[in-house]
Amino acid sequence: MPDQLTSWNDGSPKAVILDFVAAVTDSGSREFVPEVARVAVFDNDGTLACENPYTQLAFALARAAELGRPTTAEELKSGGLPAVLELLELTHGSITTDEFDAAVKTWIGAAQHPRFARPYTTTVYQPMLELLALLQDNGFTNWIVSGGGTDFMRAWAPEIFGIAPHQLIGSSGNVMFQIGDAGPELLKGTGLAILDDGPQKPISIHQYVAQRPILAAGNTDGDLPMLQWTAASPHRSLELVIHHTDGDREFAYDTDPLLGSGTGKVLAAAADGKWSVVDMASDWAVVFPA
Amino acid sequence: MPDQLTSWNDGSPKAVILDFVAAVTDSGSREFVPEVARVAVFDNDGTLACENPYTQLAFALARAAELGRPTTAEELKSGGLPAVLELLELTHGSITTDEFDAAVKTWIGAAQHPRFARPYTTTVYQPMLELLALLQDNGFTNWIVSGGGTDFMRAWAPEIFGIAPHQLIGSSGNVMFQIGDAGPELLKGTGLAILDDGPQKPISIHQYVAQRPILAAGNTDGDLPMLQWTAASPHRSLELVIHHTDGDREFAYDTDPLLGSGTGKVLAAAADGKWSVVDMASDWAVVFPA
Repeated sequence: MPDQLTSWNDGSPKAVILDFVAAVTDSGSREFVPEVARVAVFDNDGTLACENPYTQLAFALARAAELGRPTTAEELKSGGLPAVLELLELTHGSITTDEFDAAVKTWIGAAQHPRFARPYTTTVYQPMLELLALLQDNGFTNWIVSGGGTDFMRAWAPEIFGIAPHQLIGSSGNVMFQIGDAGPELLKGTGLAILDDGPQKPISIHQYVAQRPILAAGNTDGDLPMLQWTAASPHRSLELVIHHTDGDREFAYDTDPLLGSGTGKVLAAAADGKWSVVDMASDWAVVFPA
Repeated sequence: MPDQLTSWNDGSPKAVILDFVAAVTDSGSREFVPEVARVAVFDNDGTLACENPYTQLAFALARAAELGRPTTAEELKSGGLPAVLELLELTHGSITTDEFDAAVKTWIGAAQHPRFARPYTTTVYQPMLELLALLQDNGFTNWIVSGGGTDFMRAWAPEIFGIAPHQLIGSSGNVMFQIGDAGPELLKGTGLAILDDGPQKPISIHQYVAQRPILAAGNTDGDLPMLQWTAASPHRSLELVIHHTDGDREFAYDTDPLLGSGTGKVLAAAADGKWSVVDMASDWAVVFPA
């Protein structure tokens, strides 16, 4: 079989992934898992894609400026979570779902990452694209369980990651159904209904995926409950923690650049639970797609 | 092609269904819809299954008795929605999702419908089973968008209706993630988080299905927004309203037997919008599976 993980250096995480996939897909193995139960869940920001800056916040800053209410990344950082929520209310509410979808598509078609000078759709991790494809080719269903907004992500991410829009779950605001001038429409409100992080991730998995995963990948303490939930599967399972160690090619950090969530708990749990920590600097031959 | 709708009498709804499926699956037709957009949504109670009594309330009454807090259908009826919610809190909360799933499976494996003296899994409508299969065979993805509880329905309905558990959406309560004695678990709380009826149905479709349907079927005014949302699809769409006219073989009513929701608005909209009204007495040769 040709190597589908060519952007992964030989080493422990790659070997563990290949061994896991071989075992659960081998119908002669005691660890065989039927296709219907081969469910994999991935955090997005920092796990599948660069999160410095958050793509969604870059969009929100651009849209705030367009709406005549500009703010800066520095103001956001000093304002913390309340400032972020206020920005999201301004830029993600009082707009129909169709209009919002169009606004995101327009922005992401033109915006460039400030450091890498490439579209945000290409600041996703090439090794993770290869992992998604490997899993799909082996009968897995991949779901993205993001702390980011569902509507924002669905406007661009399904195509990039090769999944159906419904396989992307995230945070969401209040929505109203109304009969507008052009017919029925869904109006996005300004209130946050579900913040899909921490303990909400396994809850969202229960509600949307309706099955316990056998593979989970994350990168911060906000992904710990999702990884724990997966690790308690009755099947053999695989847990991956992406560790940002590559300041040259990406960023080296252990604390989320904006919201301050850390990695202490998830790295400790990985050590305890024999989960695989992916060292971006040493385990990945390539970070971004060519 | 063999007739897959053998339990439907020849007549308008059957002809409309067959014409619709032929048109949207014919790649030479101007009305062709690619497979990925062939999404069909179905209400459950009263549309796919008998709702007198609601299967879920029959379970709740049985479980309340088991918990030493018996109540009767008559008491529920006089107490209205508050009494129903109190019963649901008692019987659907303070239990893990795994335990609840097992409790539903045990009950539904033994319970019988009081009038038809058959398992509730067989008081589903044979013509609708045939419609679901016809659509699936023609590249549609079927979703159930029920006012009933997601966890209750997923314990038994996916197998009966031939869909994956995640394709069944309904009402849900608050859920908590916790590390219990046996490891991570999801504990069902006692509060209702989402009542999946009326305007919530198109909102849930947006969140879970992530696409606008081209076929919707319902039976009460609570299904009107879902039908309107579907009817406004840019594609050709089909809207079905199941009308309970058969007191001999099922029940004849225009007002929901317990909660009092009516059919006036949905029948008026059907007349206005040229939606298909399915007259159970005259359009169905058979009601329940043999």
